[in-house]
Amino acid sequence: MATERQTRNDIVGFARMMHGCGYVAGMDGNLSVRLDSGRILVTPTAMSKGMLRGSDLVIVDLEGRKLKGQRNVSSEIGMHLLIYSMRPDIQAVVHAHPPTATGFAASGMALTQPLICELVIGLGCVPLAKYGTPGTPELADGLSPLIPQYDAILMANHGVVTYGENLLQAYMKMETVEHFARVALVARILGHEQPLNDVDIEKLVAARKNYAGAKSAAPMPPAPHNGDNRNGFRPAGRPRESTHKISSTRSAR
Amino acid sequence: MATERQTRNDIVGFARMMHGCGYVAGMDGNLSVRLDSGRILVTPTAMSKGMLRGSDLVIVDLEGRKLKGQRNVSSEIGMHLLIYSMRPDIQAVVHAHPPTATGFAASGMALTQPLICELVIGLGCVPLAKYGTPGTPELADGLSPLIPQYDAILMANHGVVTYGENLLQAYMKMETVEHFARVALVARILGHEQPLNDVDIEKLVAARKNYAGAKSAAPMPPAPHNGDNRNGFRPAGRPRESTHKISSTRSAR
Amino acid sequence: MATERQTRNDIVGFARMMHGCGYVAGMDGNLSVRLDSGRILVTPTAMSKGMLRGSDLVIVDLEGRKLKGQRNVSSEIGMHLLIYSMRPDIQAVVHAHPPTATGFAASGMALTQPLICELVIGLGCVPLAKYGTPGTPELADGLSPLIPQYDAILMANHGVVTYGENLLQAYMKMETVEHFARVALVARILGHEQPLNDVDIEKLVAARKNYAGAKSAAPMPPAPHNGDNRNGFRPAGRPRESTHKISSTRSAR
Amino acid sequence: MATERQTRNDIVGFARMMHGCGYVAGMDGNLSVRLDSGRILVTPTAMSKGMLRGSDLVIVDLEGRKLKGQRNVSSEIGMHLLIYSMRPDIQAVVHAHPPTATGFAASGMALTQPLICELVIGLGCVPLAKYGTPGTPELADGLSPLIPQYDAILMANHGVVTYGENLLQAYMKMETVEHFARVALVARILGHEQPLNDVDIEKLVAARKNYAGAKSAAPMPPAPHNGDNRNGFRPAGRPRESTHKISSTRSAR
Repeated sequence: MATERQTRNDIVGFARMMHGCGYVAGMDGNLSVRLDSGRILVTPTAMSKGMLRGSDLVIVDLEGRKLKGQRNVSSEIGMHLLIYSMRPDIQAVVHAHPPTATGFAASGMALTQPLICELVIGLGCVPLAKYGTPGTPELADGLSPLIPQYDAILMANHGVVTYGENLLQAYMKMETVEHFARVALVARILGHEQPLNDVDIEKLVAARKNYAGAKSAAPMPPAPHNGDNRNGFRPAGRPRESTHKISSTRSAR
Repeated sequence: MATERQTRNDIVGFARMMHGCGYVAGMDGNLSVRLDSGRILVTPTAMSKGMLRGSDLVIVDLEGRKLKGQRNVSSEIGMHLLIYSMRPDIQAVVHAHPPTATGFAASGMALTQPLICELVIGLGCVPLAKYGTPGTPELADGLSPLIPQYDAILMANHGVVTYGENLLQAYMKMETVEHFARVALVARILGHEQPLNDVDIEKLVAARKNYAGAKSAAPMPPAPHNGDNRNGFRPAGRPRESTHKISSTRSAR
Repeated sequence: MATERQTRNDIVGFARMMHGCGYVAGMDGNLSVRLDSGRILVTPTAMSKGMLRGSDLVIVDLEGRKLKGQRNVSSEIGMHLLIYSMRPDIQAVVHAHPPTATGFAASGMALTQPLICELVIGLGCVPLAKYGTPGTPELADGLSPLIPQYDAILMANHGVVTYGENLLQAYMKMETVEHFARVALVARILGHEQPLNDVDIEKLVAARKNYAGAKSAAPMPPAPHNGDNRNGFRPAGRPRESTHKISSTRSAR
Repeated sequence: MATERQTRNDIVGFARMMHGCGYVAGMDGNLSVRLDSGRILVTPTAMSKGMLRGSDLVIVDLEGRKLKGQRNVSSEIGMHLLIYSMRPDIQAVVHAHPPTATGFAASGMALTQPLICELVIGLGCVPLAKYGTPGTPELADGLSPLIPQYDAILMANHGVVTYGENLLQAYMKMETVEHFARVALVARILGHEQPLNDVDIEKLVAARKNYAGAKSAAPMPPAPHNGDNRNGFRPAGRPRESTHKISSTRSAR
């Protein structure tokens, strides 16, 4: 079990990495870790993620009331608390705006094309939550239907949120979402996307249990029937139903 | 209050970051900080921003006359002085050519599409100043109408200038402009831009006051009526009038 | 001859470089080195390549049975062993998903256009192996026909594998594949690809022997006859036969 | 005057920067500095530019014969010697394949659109030398007509070469070429390129003498008459004649 001090260092380290990779600009982005059943350690508002120190972080309770810290808590704390309340297995949340994935989110497009086998194994697909004004209940309206099944979500006209059983897992899913988006963008520019077919996706479903890193509950992306998935477009907030739910692969903690 | 020595270190640090991020190439770019009511500390001409030392910086008065320093002052000093004279609240100015935003500026396109809520809250929109030859009064002609209302401006066929209440704020706005441009470019390549609508923009106006980092006076971008804003195109030098001016949110220093 | 300890450090160093360059995200990617005639040192499963330590690596025999190490071996070990068994001259294998090259691989497109002379000299062309589910014999079915002649292969809907007489050579081929893909993508966006012609390719074949770094057995790319190669498209798994095989240039170790 | 030891360190430093920026991959790229009237210090063949040490460099005479060094000289030494023989004012040469500029070079496109004023002041335009097989007299045939007037040249199906009065200047021109290409690519994707007009270019010609960093003899780019320059295309090896030659601005050393 990591100490609070170590957890502060970890958040600062991933925050710097997130800024260094260009996943956030200005004061954007926020990260949190569940310290115990009643306390969340989270980044403050209005600071560059590339310039945090451990003492800048804030501790809040599960209603977002500040328990400790000089600074004010991130204005996005509500999104973090929503995820912690709906997913007891989740210990860390990362929110950023990686530019390629955010370009999809600004275009009403989920990342649902099954283009790369390891992305299918690791994340399944990345749905798009409908837009809601940050800091209002609308935001929760868009996210709530998706949080139980997915560990990485595009947020329309906003960015990306990922979460996991620890901060490393949550951060790595953010990397994977942006990487997936980069590959999908290149394929789209080339104009010859060749998504995997149903048979190959079924085999990946069967293979998933062999991958220690693949604990996502995310449904597999549907294979492109009748060409309707070729452009990767999906109406915001209405992820297609899938028959490939692998709920047994999520390990409760 | 930072000492002059600390301010020199800060300029050198942000100059290196600016070069490391590819926001400038060759000898391009310049940064300045208002030391007091009569003195500006600014980068010299003809040096890579990745290789400055604190002793390379120059101090000039408000007419641009050198007060201290071995090197010659940046040839863009006139633009910095114009901003300091029109905006007493501004303490630092950053000029660079981040390649995506500069590609918009070389295309006569402002960054006005309301694609991402946090960019709308933080910067509003980024107008395009009409082209003027550097080092001539033409440059001021293009910038002057925009400086009072905006904290970040695209300069046609030139680059980007940002400014703020301190160097960190000014630099972070440069990051945000380039990030906004990257997202907008991806959305444009995807061909499905889905800008926010009037109602959602109004809610962001109302939310702005809750964000400690959002002190910009920039008007909110207009929502896309009649499809005329879908391509993000705006004639140079004629930013659309907006009814969403939030002058009360700028904190004079 | 490098010690096992030095080889562990080398793998860790290239793994970090690979992650730092964005060639992998999340837990993706794997690297291995042949320690001697019966032992392979390889990266473990389910760890970020940016966070490995030398003690995380695993030693397996030529059937993939673990001989040493706390962690489990990469789930892609079969691909590494296939290459070592078919190519006795190969001492190191690198597998990653660099985003531009992987975008080609997700589009059913090999990198066969002779756009840049140094890429032609160094790699010839980069064929596309047909898709096979990772960890199954299908994967070997796609790769086996290509392994004898090529040192760098795109894997459809998967990524890239490169190998060489040492880890540096294998890694540098990965860099070259992604670099080639970036140049090809820019040329495609510009829409004026001007590939080299037959006469110029013949001269590069003749020049190859002068280049110490060019030991690849890869056939030269065919010149574009009848415009059929202008779009760089090649059906998966059927690399075009070439008359330019330079088998004498490979130095067995 | 830098010592040989310091010059070795400088070459190693810029070589690492060049590799770190992705301007070269694999063993590509080479750098040289004129030590005195009869000796050139140059990078060796078949080494990654990210892993050089000072002792890896080679000294050759003006015919390319090795005077000192354990390793073999770069196979591109002929290009360096050609430039040194035609341009006595040049003290350093850099050759690389930055991916965006090289994509233009693989498309038969020079960088001639006057999109950004500071690029026009600093480099004028970047012509395209016709293709010639590396290591043969053909390569010189393409470059020779351009070397007297330009300090930065795209080489068709090859890459970029830049040179200057010292290594810093030569390297910074390489940065500028790639930066120019990035801006031009973004503008092309946006589809609204707005190049500067004749009147504005004339003013930049007049302004050039005020810029300490702008010593290039490169002609200004011609303004786009009759729309024939809108797509930035220029037949290889035939740069348009210009009336804006500023030969007096080059400072012989």
